[in-house]
Amino acid sequence: MNVLSYAAQSASGDLAPLALERREPRTDDVVIDILFCGVCHTDLHLARNHGGFTSYPIVPGHEIIGRVRQVGAAVQRFKAGDLVGVGCMVDSCQHCQPCLKGWEQDCAEGATYTYNSIDRHDGMPTFGGYSNAIVVTEKFVLTLPEGMDPAGAAPLLCAGITTWSPLRRWNVGEGSKVAVIGLGGLGHTALKLAKALGADVTLFTRSSGKEKDAFRLGADHVVLSGDPAQMAAVAGRFDLIIDTVPYDHDVNPYMPTLVLEGVLVLVGYMGPLGTPVNAGAVVRGRRAITGSFIGGIAETQEMLDFCGKHGVVSDVEIISIQQINQAYERILKSDVKYRFVIDMASLKS
Amino acid sequence: MNVLSYAAQSASGDLAPLALERREPRTDDVVIDILFCGVCHTDLHLARNHGGFTSYPIVPGHEIIGRVRQVGAAVQRFKAGDLVGVGCMVDSCQHCQPCLKGWEQDCAEGATYTYNSIDRHDGMPTFGGYSNAIVVTEKFVLTLPEGMDPAGAAPLLCAGITTWSPLRRWNVGEGSKVAVIGLGGLGHTALKLAKALGADVTLFTRSSGKEKDAFRLGADHVVLSGDPAQMAAVAGRFDLIIDTVPYDHDVNPYMPTLVLEGVLVLVGYMGPLGTPVNAGAVVRGRRAITGSFIGGIAETQEMLDFCGKHGVVSDVEIISIQQINQAYERILKSDVKYRFVIDMASLKS
Ligand SMILES: [Zn+2]
Ligand SMILES: [Zn+2]
Ligand SMILES: [Zn+2]
Ligand SMILES: [Zn+2]
Repeated sequence: MNVLSYAAQSASGDLAPLALERREPRTDDVVIDILFCGVCHTDLHLARNHGGFTSYPIVPGHEIIGRVRQVGAAVQRFKAGDLVGVGCMVDSCQHCQPCLKGWEQDCAEGATYTYNSIDRHDGMPTFGGYSNAIVVTEKFVLTLPEGMDPAGAAPLLCAGITTWSPLRRWNVGEGSKVAVIGLGGLGHTALKLAKALGADVTLFTRSSGKEKDAFRLGADHVVLSGDPAQMAAVAGRFDLIIDTVPYDHDVNPYMPTLVLEGVLVLVGYMGPLGTPVNAGAVVRGRRAITGSFIGGIAETQEMLDFCGKHGVVSDVEIISIQQINQAYERILKSDVKYRFVIDMASLKS
Repeated sequence: MNVLSYAAQSASGDLAPLALERREPRTDDVVIDILFCGVCHTDLHLARNHGGFTSYPIVPGHEIIGRVRQVGAAVQRFKAGDLVGVGCMVDSCQHCQPCLKGWEQDCAEGATYTYNSIDRHDGMPTFGGYSNAIVVTEKFVLTLPEGMDPAGAAPLLCAGITTWSPLRRWNVGEGSKVAVIGLGGLGHTALKLAKALGADVTLFTRSSGKEKDAFRLGADHVVLSGDPAQMAAVAGRFDLIIDTVPYDHDVNPYMPTLVLEGVLVLVGYMGPLGTPVNAGAVVRGRRAITGSFIGGIAETQEMLDFCGKHGVVSDVEIISIQQINQAYERILKSDVKYRFVIDMASLKS
């Protein structure tokens, strides 16, 4: 199946149009015409080979919203014309313990990611959503709730599930006090979801001037993390902190703001924490530092359904695919409120 | 009330006999003739002012077993002749949220520690268990279960509750897989308690030659933490790791040995973790790094009762008070199996 995509051919090269082949649909496959694709930090990291494990050409994009073009004979849940989503994964082993409990992201044999991965059946490379169409096994296709804005929904497939999963794991609801560190793609989604779940929500930010936006997005309070007086004023306050900071940072100042047995969840950073973690900060008060990595397929559908019911979508700036390289530069300057989403109609022009 | 004690007068001085005054018993006080007192790492740290907050003279000792000499008029639970214990705390505010839920160790106004603390009622310094007698408010006096060896019971008041509390918090029982890092005073107690709770128990140790002792103390398996093959063989195995290492160390190698959502609990170290914690190790698999600090009074009594029922006491080497300085040197060389306990009868000689 021939498709048109935008791909990087090297770590230093811009993304540019590339015609490539996707697999012929299998009986359990859904062929999706892509309408919108969100632009995630990870896209940029992998396009530029920051992790050292990128295979070129790479077609990024794992926040995909599209319309079903056709389905294989064995597909039951979808039909042509349905609005659907595809997130960070397109397959997993389906028989390991994590898969069986719905944690495909922790598949013991390794999940198949939406791009820069190898299909586990035919050995072909996977290519992401910066493309006019994609072929995905039914099990990894999500249903878009009726009436949801498809552009605003796209980032929910990655930023949404990444923040939803810890909010649910820690039973956030009415009466919960939740703090969010950082106001980017993940952070602004976390504010919206925590608020929609009924929590009292605080934004930790390093820079002032974000209050108005934060309140609009769902924050009840804004705390300048660099201001010792403001930090002291929230000592012992939060049940849960969602830490969306995507680079190395010092988590110690946030720990005393947790209640006893409170939890800080890293969702934006996977590297070493260069500032030594103070063991005393977890020993006293039994506080915990943990993390969360996207979420399973069933949980992603649950999140989408919740967002449909509560009118939650991401705040997006719609761009054309031709603007993608410029968008990457703006992401590096945090110059986006709060997620770029590519209108894939632009790919044909 | 005049008592005889062993005290340090400075960070560099040996401990030596010192006559000093304790408060006249209040109506809610229990006067205890001390029979045995365990020797904890913390005693040494504070005697030598490693934390920089020691007031001299200091009388260490917070693993106290004794016999009630007399009780105040308001005391209800104890009478002269009872065998009792006193641990790390002798008072707390009793009205803050942590106190009300039985977490006196996290008292919002600060617990009164057994030594090197200030009594919250009369402002007198507290002196610990290296002494012939102590005066403690009834609420912080523990009942020794009938038939329990009083010397072996002493370390339970600190090492016992410190390891019991996380085992209980994480619901360890039949079917649990627990690992313990380090085989010292805390570690050997953790092995015994985890085993008595019905868990499958593994010891992580850096040095071989500890297998025989470990198996005798309750371990089902011993893993050399420096052997990559042995570490790989236990990947994804443990529900809970009790990390008793009392100094800075690298926790990263242990994280992949946890199950999904498994927890590593620091109980022996309160300083900075100099080797950067790898955020990826908690983000992937939602594993957590947390800690635990002694435990509350009700929980300590629960632990003692459990130990009485299951025949658990510490493995101790009984010393005279005159051997205390030599014992400190041996502790520094990890030359103790597994806890020194002072026979306080030696104080009179
Ligand atoms: Zn992403
Ligand atoms: Zn799997
Ligand atoms: Zn101790
Ligand atoms: Zn209190």
